[in-house]
Amino acid sequence: MSHHRTEDPLGAGFRELWDQLAPVGRDPDSGGYLRYAFTPAERELRNWFAAQAKRRGMPVTDDGNGNLFAWWAAPDTADDGPAAEAGTAATARAVLTGSHFDSVPHGGGYDGPLGIVSAFLAIDELRRAGTVPVRPIGVAAFVEEEGARFGVPCLGSRLLAGAFDPDRAAELRDADRVSFAEALGARPAGARPDLLARVGAYLELHVEQGRALAGGAAPVGVASAIWPHGRWRFEFDGEANHAGTTRMADRRDPMLTYAFTVLAANKEARLRGAHATIGRVRVEPNATNAVPGRVTGWLDARAAEPAVLDELVEAVRAKAADRARRDGTGLTVVAESTSPLVAFDDDLGARLARLLGAPVLPTAAGHDAGVLAGQVPTAMLFVRNPTGVSHSPAEHATEADCVAGVRALAGALAELACR
Amino acid sequence: MSHHRTEDPLGAGFRELWDQLAPVGRDPDSGGYLRYAFTPAERELRNWFAAQAKRRGMPVTDDGNGNLFAWWAAPDTADDGPAAEAGTAATARAVLTGSHFDSVPHGGGYDGPLGIVSAFLAIDELRRAGTVPVRPIGVAAFVEEEGARFGVPCLGSRLLAGAFDPDRAAELRDADRVSFAEALGARPAGARPDLLARVGAYLELHVEQGRALAGGAAPVGVASAIWPHGRWRFEFDGEANHAGTTRMADRRDPMLTYAFTVLAANKEARLRGAHATIGRVRVEPNATNAVPGRVTGWLDARAAEPAVLDELVEAVRAKAADRARRDGTGLTVVAESTSPLVAFDDDLGARLARLLGAPVLPTAAGHDAGVLAGQVPTAMLFVRNPTGVSHSPAEHATEADCVAGVRALAGALAELACR
Repeated sequence: MSHHRTEDPLGAGFRELWDQLAPVGRDPDSGGYLRYAFTPAERELRNWFAAQAKRRGMPVTDDGNGNLFAWWAAPDTADDGPAAEAGTAATARAVLTGSHFDSVPHGGGYDGPLGIVSAFLAIDELRRAGTVPVRPIGVAAFVEEEGARFGVPCLGSRLLAGAFDPDRAAELRDADRVSFAEALGARPAGARPDLLARVGAYLELHVEQGRALAGGAAPVGVASAIWPHGRWRFEFDGEANHAGTTRMADRRDPMLTYAFTVLAANKEARLRGAHATIGRVRVEPNATNAVPGRVTGWLDARAAEPAVLDELVEAVRAKAADRARRDGTGLTVVAESTSPLVAFDDDLGARLARLLGAPVLPTAAGHDAGVLAGQVPTAMLFVRNPTGVSHSPAEHATEADCVAGVRALAGALAELACR
Repeated sequence: MSHHRTEDPLGAGFRELWDQLAPVGRDPDSGGYLRYAFTPAERELRNWFAAQAKRRGMPVTDDGNGNLFAWWAAPDTADDGPAAEAGTAATARAVLTGSHFDSVPHGGGYDGPLGIVSAFLAIDELRRAGTVPVRPIGVAAFVEEEGARFGVPCLGSRLLAGAFDPDRAAELRDADRVSFAEALGARPAGARPDLLARVGAYLELHVEQGRALAGGAAPVGVASAIWPHGRWRFEFDGEANHAGTTRMADRRDPMLTYAFTVLAANKEARLRGAHATIGRVRVEPNATNAVPGRVTGWLDARAAEPAVLDELVEAVRAKAADRARRDGTGLTVVAESTSPLVAFDDDLGARLARLLGAPVLPTAAGHDAGVLAGQVPTAMLFVRNPTGVSHSPAEHATEADCVAGVRALAGALAELACR
């Protein structure tokens, strides 16, 4: 009789896959990831996806928009018999689960990839238990979820769902003026109702990006909703000038208006229990000895209620415009993307929460699941994040919690696709 | 008898040279110039300098630091006889005049090149009048005056004057990690007292970067002094995080501390009749949906009196530190460069003002003349700028005023080198 602890095969499996991904696209200075859509790092992850699918005998398809799918039983083999027997529309067709590979600049390793790694491992777990799906199970890798390269978050899922014009997507350009169509190697296909019609449910596992689970006993939670949110571009125009010689009274300095707006956004969000951030700025010419000619700031704003979000953005805009008058600068505000309130499927969420004994919580982060929720019954599982930190090299989840996440996902897939 | 107006040869000469320079390094979108030291655009200007010198039979030398000199009679041919006769030390050796080719990002075309173009044209004017110098006249083109590529303004003149360590200069790096030594093609030579010992006076003509002349009748002014000034790097450290999901109360957002500091710098400068600008910022990761982990801002501050400048910078630092405590962020302040008060040579300035009937005015801008003033009697001529705008594509001087500048410079050279 041996005294050594029996290794949990899920823990070993998780470590194996996680170690394969860890070095890909990691910046040695920051420790964060640079995994923008279709860059060499993200392509390496796409190749990894294909290799993992092949290893499991899962054929890979793509939707012409850059999104990848690996299938355990192809969706066109779906048999309506067992689905009808199971008795819910949500489980009548394929069950899709996955996430995205791309990162924000110097982001963490969990945001996105954890959902894809967990999907493959959940399938391993089902197979180990001898569970046989009666509906196809698909693993999805969506492209450009963060919008870090082409500026539109959830671009891949929006295209698939028909929520973004493929001609407009084709012409989106990155910082080097490369278009999305060039990066994709084709004009995007756009809406694929034929494909979505074969999907009965979408389930996305994601690292939590807050601390709702951190204080409790449960390593996994179920999402109830995604706050309405959006990004607004604030362009402040002034007059470029010499920083040394231009009298203060003669200046039209857009950096002042920008700075005031940063503080106003913070204050207005706090007043409303909402979230507002200006974390990205572009300055022209951005020289130490020049008063800027133009400063552009991006406002990220989110609130639990659409009316509160509208009020918040309007309050920030009004304060910025008032300050612009005092600074002699110009202000243009452009809504770059807005995402309405997403309520995930109540029945599906309640069923998973019951099944997993998991708490139900809202989130203020956008996800591909939020886009797909308009087309198919959708749910999200969150894995506990001890610090709540995300979009940062410090983003973390413990291995035990990641394994609990895989186990929960396997349980959910067994419930939705295997009976 | 012809009725057509006799063309001023100076006007035609100015237009010819100005039109040659106009397209070099001009950004078609902004209309401003990208003429950083040793980039292809600036090298083209250096080649133009050599061609202009050759056309005038002026041999070109360099000082091993990247600075170029074209000589009408080499400095080692200086004859002390006439100098002794003229009776001042300032005119005993060569008279040097010139400026720089490099620009700030998207800067104007006048700041720098006007002084070099005017120097060649002033020599043409002296020759046309049959004036023969009794002391050598040199045309100078200093390198990296703006500090836009390697971060240290007046780097070329500082090296020549022994005011900057050549080993440190060799290791200064641009945004692409190219070192100054690599760009120069050699380790810089550093101080050249042998060369400066042969220079009796330095005279820099420059477009005015304010509006002191704009209201008056005189197209040209004489500088009295350069305000003490410097650049300070403010590093604000916080915690990168997800902009959507991180509660406002949980954030340590360095953009807030930065924004507060921008407004504080403006207010503190106004209170003191000084100048303060934060026109350059770097944000990490600079993503719309991420609370920044670090924001770096560069403070450019200037005042008429050293004590006022010290007070100003200390007040901004104290306000930033106070706000950092409230924001839970960290603050580090690094003085990147400081330039003391420069009083130009009183006798030389008064003599030129009398000769030219020109007003005397101070400036808050740094110049190579300010560096050389510590080693040789130095004066500056300013050409009227109708809007005062500089470091911007909108920088401008009328052709008539530029021609008046050439004429003033020719008069000054006749006074200092030809009698």
